[in-house]
Amino acid sequence: MPVNLKPLTIDSIFPIKGISLGIAKAHIKKPNRKDLLLVTIAEGSKVSGVFTQNAFCAAPVFLCKEHLKNTSGIRALVVNTGCANAGTGEDGILKAKETCEAVSKLLSIEPHQVLPFSTGVILESLPIDKIRNGLPDALKNLDSSHWIDAAEAIMTTDIAPKAASRKIKIKDKEVVISGVSKGSGMIHPNMATMLSFIATDASINQILLDKLLKEVTGESFNCITVDGDTSTNDSFILIATGKAEHDEINQEDKSYEILRDAIREVAIELAQAIVRDGEGATKFITIQVESGLDNAECRKVGFAIAHSPLIKTAFFASDPNLGRILAAIGYAGIESLDITKIQLFLGNVLVVEKGGRAISYTETQGQEVMKHPEISMRILLNRGNANATIWTCDFSYDYVKINADYRT
Amino acid sequence: MPVNLKPLTIDSIFPIKGISLGIAKAHIKKPNRKDLLLVTIAEGSKVSGVFTQNAFCAAPVFLCKEHLKNTSGIRALVVNTGCANAGTGEDGILKAKETCEAVSKLLSIEPHQVLPFSTGVILESLPIDKIRNGLPDALKNLDSSHWIDAAEAIMTTDIAPKAASRKIKIKDKEVVISGVSKGSGMIHPNMATMLSFIATDASINQILLDKLLKEVTGESFNCITVDGDTSTNDSFILIATGKAEHDEINQEDKSYEILRDAIREVAIELAQAIVRDGEGATKFITIQVESGLDNAECRKVGFAIAHSPLIKTAFFASDPNLGRILAAIGYAGIESLDITKIQLFLGNVLVVEKGGRAISYTETQGQEVMKHPEISMRILLNRGNANATIWTCDFSYDYVKINADYRT
Repeated sequence: MPVNLKPLTIDSIFPIKGISLGIAKAHIKKPNRKDLLLVTIAEGSKVSGVFTQNAFCAAPVFLCKEHLKNTSGIRALVVNTGCANAGTGEDGILKAKETCEAVSKLLSIEPHQVLPFSTGVILESLPIDKIRNGLPDALKNLDSSHWIDAAEAIMTTDIAPKAASRKIKIKDKEVVISGVSKGSGMIHPNMATMLSFIATDASINQILLDKLLKEVTGESFNCITVDGDTSTNDSFILIATGKAEHDEINQEDKSYEILRDAIREVAIELAQAIVRDGEGATKFITIQVESGLDNAECRKVGFAIAHSPLIKTAFFASDPNLGRILAAIGYAGIESLDITKIQLFLGNVLVVEKGGRAISYTETQGQEVMKHPEISMRILLNRGNANATIWTCDFSYDYVKINADYRT
Repeated sequence: MPVNLKPLTIDSIFPIKGISLGIAKAHIKKPNRKDLLLVTIAEGSKVSGVFTQNAFCAAPVFLCKEHLKNTSGIRALVVNTGCANAGTGEDGILKAKETCEAVSKLLSIEPHQVLPFSTGVILESLPIDKIRNGLPDALKNLDSSHWIDAAEAIMTTDIAPKAASRKIKIKDKEVVISGVSKGSGMIHPNMATMLSFIATDASINQILLDKLLKEVTGESFNCITVDGDTSTNDSFILIATGKAEHDEINQEDKSYEILRDAIREVAIELAQAIVRDGEGATKFITIQVESGLDNAECRKVGFAIAHSPLIKTAFFASDPNLGRILAAIGYAGIESLDITKIQLFLGNVLVVEKGGRAISYTETQGQEVMKHPEISMRILLNRGNANATIWTCDFSYDYVKINADYRT
């Protein structure tokens, strides 16, 4: 079961003016499950996106990048689960294009105004007929309140749907932000996440929306890992419909900051939800790396710890095996690291200083911290002013089980 | 059980003139097991070593590097299992020094003529009294034939002892090479391996011995991974006693090449033995990356595959989940990678080309390759002339079990 992931209630995810969501059962991989999502976006909305850095990026990612270059405005998203349409060569591009064409006909827009997304098994051909047949149902289902249905329709090995919402005030007008994401394995986003869509009715110009997206990504989806595998399909899309009735944000003023902070909150909640629902996860682990020379080296240390199978299995066993954490810090590749300056805290307990175990530390203290489902650790490098926070989960028998069974 | 690791027979590991090995039960972590090894080295022998790049390197590694700078010649190795003496600060250095002093007294040599090694749990203080008490037994036990006992005395989570031997001719004289190694988890050597000791009676000058060590390391111990964790204690020591009666090798001639090739064979056999006995391993996987721009990028691709928990669990399930391999190639960080040029072979079966699944490929072919305990794959980048080979194992329930239980 996901680690401390609260079940969603219908009234906790607010509708966004200008956004409608419709789902369908298209029988793409399994019968009788929600596996197709259509999102319509009001004319005049601004849309920004970041995508996987994986060289084997999926066909829909390739097409999304192309379509976002177009200036006539994105008017729809289409998402299927069950097939990633990745590692599919020319055939994959053709089928992603056909998906956009099918959507464009139903909505009377241009194909390049549609962004396509796919998630599921890699290296299998997209069942375009099933998608085409499912789209009319999704169209009929369109409704501004269908956020949780949308979260369910994009799940793969996810156990729980993931959505988050905030209401803020900008220039005295109410502004709403809602988002959904999916992801559980193959999680080590690089410039983006698995699939995440956040929309707001705020009004903001395109340049600032792009900037906001990058700022938020760096502090949310790019700070999580389940297994260190960067997906072929990672995409994070941010939509601003401009339907809230405030003046457009066109400089980095107080309004920009309020909006960015609220979107960051939603993005972090969604990113953490992915980790809480990480494949086989039993613990949610926060790794704070502090007082480094720069953010990059703090992230290196954080991810070295977060990727270590030895550390992740020790967390699964609730075993404060601190030596493994030290080993990971030591191989993180930080230049001229003075290990005698490093301090390591497990929860609030100082466990390492001066290159060895803290004299005050007792095994009982460590075990007390480790037995909880939420564990935090702080690593002080004591050589600068930069910080980074990374979120990850443990490594359990179920991770092996899920991934040994996934295709069957 | 280790994957296709043949049991050692006493007559398969040859004695080396000038080397004696003695073991003892010093009760360091567990009672009644071989856990202390003393190796004596004849005067005039040349010794070379490479060590972990982990910044949190263990106290004995620190001391080894110091002692190897000395010109009076290394005359003994002392190895304990059960405690890594890593992450132990000043106390660790003191106890490693005391270990060398104890050995030096018994053998009437200088403390800096002793190289100390430790392996086991990190962050615990070395039980120096137990080591001191065990050394006289190890001294009494010294014998040139005790190679397999030595391999057993350095094991931790290893299931099987690891040793290898070769006989060659140099300038018409018989030359013998024998070595032992240990390691099963925390295996991703960086410039060295867990613990590996190889000795030969060949005669070679120090500069060429150092060069030979580095050449061999790059093609053996630095090409393996079990879990991507670089240990704090990795050490690889090469000893040439010069007792074979050929003229000293002092240039990179035919004799140098014969010796290097034979030592490389022994080193590769030992490195592969570590992977075959990798924690929880059920498959031995060879990853050949070919036609890259340089060796570094081939290694990057190989290790991206070898470190992916998703790929390793799929191998455990005998599932030809090729999409995960493509994803790993895609996130390996290779610049300007043209994925349409890449060819992927599983065994002899072409499975990927032109950015997608090969038309000739069938799932049955993939399953046929995957069901064997020895699996090889070839990735052709088709953009240069460099190659690299990486060896790894799969990721099973038992990996989680072993590492969730290790300290208890």
